[in-house]
Amino acid sequence: METWVPVPNGSGFGVHNLPYGVFSRRGELPRVGVAIGDHVLDLAELAAAGLLADRRWFASGTLNAFMAAGRAVWQATRDRLTTLLTDAAYRDQVEPHLVPLSDAEPRLPFDVADYVDFYSSRDHAANVSQIFRPGGDPLPPNWLHLPIGYHGRAGTVVLSGTPIVRPCGQRRGDDVPVFGPTVKLDVEAEVGFVVGVPSALGRPVPTAGFRDHVFGFVLVNDWSARDIQAWEYQPLGPFLGKSFATSISPWVVPVAALESARTGPPAQNPEPLPYLRTDEPWGLEMTLQIELNGHVVSRPPFARMYWTAPQQLAHATVNGAALRTGDLMASGTVSGPTRHERGSLIELTWDGRDPLVLPDGQRRAYLEDGDTVRIQATAAGPDGAPIGFGEVTGTVLPVIC
Amino acid sequence: METWVPVPNGSGFGVHNLPYGVFSRRGELPRVGVAIGDHVLDLAELAAAGLLADRRWFASGTLNAFMAAGRAVWQATRDRLTTLLTDAAYRDQVEPHLVPLSDAEPRLPFDVADYVDFYSSRDHAANVSQIFRPGGDPLPPNWLHLPIGYHGRAGTVVLSGTPIVRPCGQRRGDDVPVFGPTVKLDVEAEVGFVVGVPSALGRPVPTAGFRDHVFGFVLVNDWSARDIQAWEYQPLGPFLGKSFATSISPWVVPVAALESARTGPPAQNPEPLPYLRTDEPWGLEMTLQIELNGHVVSRPPFARMYWTAPQQLAHATVNGAALRTGDLMASGTVSGPTRHERGSLIELTWDGRDPLVLPDGQRRAYLEDGDTVRIQATAAGPDGAPIGFGEVTGTVLPVIC
Repeated sequence: METWVPVPNGSGFGVHNLPYGVFSRRGELPRVGVAIGDHVLDLAELAAAGLLADRRWFASGTLNAFMAAGRAVWQATRDRLTTLLTDAAYRDQVEPHLVPLSDAEPRLPFDVADYVDFYSSRDHAANVSQIFRPGGDPLPPNWLHLPIGYHGRAGTVVLSGTPIVRPCGQRRGDDVPVFGPTVKLDVEAEVGFVVGVPSALGRPVPTAGFRDHVFGFVLVNDWSARDIQAWEYQPLGPFLGKSFATSISPWVVPVAALESARTGPPAQNPEPLPYLRTDEPWGLEMTLQIELNGHVVSRPPFARMYWTAPQQLAHATVNGAALRTGDLMASGTVSGPTRHERGSLIELTWDGRDPLVLPDGQRRAYLEDGDTVRIQATAAGPDGAPIGFGEVTGTVLPVIC
Repeated sequence: METWVPVPNGSGFGVHNLPYGVFSRRGELPRVGVAIGDHVLDLAELAAAGLLADRRWFASGTLNAFMAAGRAVWQATRDRLTTLLTDAAYRDQVEPHLVPLSDAEPRLPFDVADYVDFYSSRDHAANVSQIFRPGGDPLPPNWLHLPIGYHGRAGTVVLSGTPIVRPCGQRRGDDVPVFGPTVKLDVEAEVGFVVGVPSALGRPVPTAGFRDHVFGFVLVNDWSARDIQAWEYQPLGPFLGKSFATSISPWVVPVAALESARTGPPAQNPEPLPYLRTDEPWGLEMTLQIELNGHVVSRPPFARMYWTAPQQLAHATVNGAALRTGDLMASGTVSGPTRHERGSLIELTWDGRDPLVLPDGQRRAYLEDGDTVRIQATAAGPDGAPIGFGEVTGTVLPVIC
């Protein structure tokens, strides 16, 4: 399948991807678009020109209405876009609605309803256990039985590129806590999925319902202040150590674009309870990449995640909790078994004991003011075509407190 | 100050209260109203009749737009409503817009943005510590230094009266976890405040900013499944043990209605860090009441809460986290020092070891299917007039899983 749109070699935005986002051009209202190569296809204009079925979904500043429309609409839209972008007969009609990515200012792609963060990488959980409790159990006793998760702050989910002001807060001191800017500002490289179709209160969503409810995936950087978190998190979990900002990528990769990437996740032993079992494999062949100030410091492998997205969704609703359009559920830090596959600085530097040395000679235990972090990811597409997730970036700004 | 509206003796909805809510009558769109005695004053009609400045805020299915309008608008509206309801000259114009409460179907009063739950009763925290760790420290080491809190699920905040389906989930078993309906379904009687005016990312809100940002208070029942919670909560806090439902009362009591209730909170020792200090007392003279199947089982005293609402607000934003209109922050379970002042069944029955015996002879360790819980509260108003919070109720429905 070939598109008539020029797609640069190695672009993750080929015709097999077609990720959705929201963008604006100078002086115009935001609208929904689809990334293709170095362009965005303006779906609001395309619909206004009569080339798509429904305009309401796309002349919008968020994806929420389209996400709520459901799987049949998602599939029909994807099929139609594929036709428009591959059949040269449509080129003259469609081409005027392609906007260079460089002219398109991305917006937060959807209004976040609730934000849940999981803890589903076994390597990450084991690393954290070793760092904080050397010689202790490698995993909490519940870890192999359920995908541990908690609610984060939806109101501080921000778009990639938003500056990250170093947070202030309390951390443990000798006698009394110390107040000031965090000295352990960290990243967590994650992959999140976003709910399109809501569910009713009191009605769990089974693992097999994943494709009916979930619209797509984004990259997530769950910025973390480790010192604030360590002091506050007992007994009710992370709060201010996480709630200052969570960044997401602008392009939502549709679930349908990831079919070729699906792979068997690691064997689960003990066997999960029935509500957590899946009929089809939902590991994803996908590699993340973390850059710090332009230097690649890690390539976390997503296929090793122990708990999969459908298991996370089923777990989050097994108590009858309702889903809303825009619910964002993130995987938790993605880490692999080797040092250069770890998805956070606390793991990469072993809580600062073994700092990173960048190629320019700079050393980092945690993030310093002015540092820029960029996370990217690519999944396996059909015929080896890369399915790109774009990127999620952020630069640390200093704070006075 | 007297109102010309008949207000029954002992009503908590006198003219010093004027709580806001959203209601509908058969066949009509929901709109904003104010409770007075046994009536609701229809603010949408009042505004349409030219008796209030702005109609947009009130011909709405939520309070959010009015809450976002800010303190000057809240005060001007409250002043105007007070005039309309006390000056007999307005009686003929206003009286047609009074709806009997029995004809008004309440709605969820505001769209919840983020939901945060604190843990600010020292008696509650000490009880929980004793129940789970007898002989251990009475409080976590951070407890006296910061108001511990965590994010709950905003999407499952429901209106008083919504049936509560008993949640299913995992709980600790002998060898492996057991799956099934919770056998430890509990309540938490709490008082929450709701944010009206948002704040910017990266800009903490000081304790002195409380009145500029917070619109009012509601009652909260933070339903809890203790067995699910106990198994899941390490290390990232409560998740499914809480996320199935949180009920709130229909009427939002304005901050201005609670001026007479303000009192000195318990002495704080050690002295809190500067960002948690307050210039004025923000304890509230207010007593909650919990009924189980019509029998009063507890009267928790709110004035004993260790951490106050302005301290909670300042803490939740000290890391730069932004506020949104509709953010709900709940106090945590309100408990007093004696048995009949405890705000949860886990405390009232000491985790079931000492069941409640109701006057009809029924015994309860935790909630059974069909049980109804009703929480009410009254604060001290001017000249001893009660400021009522209405009620938050819920009945437990059985589940099959």
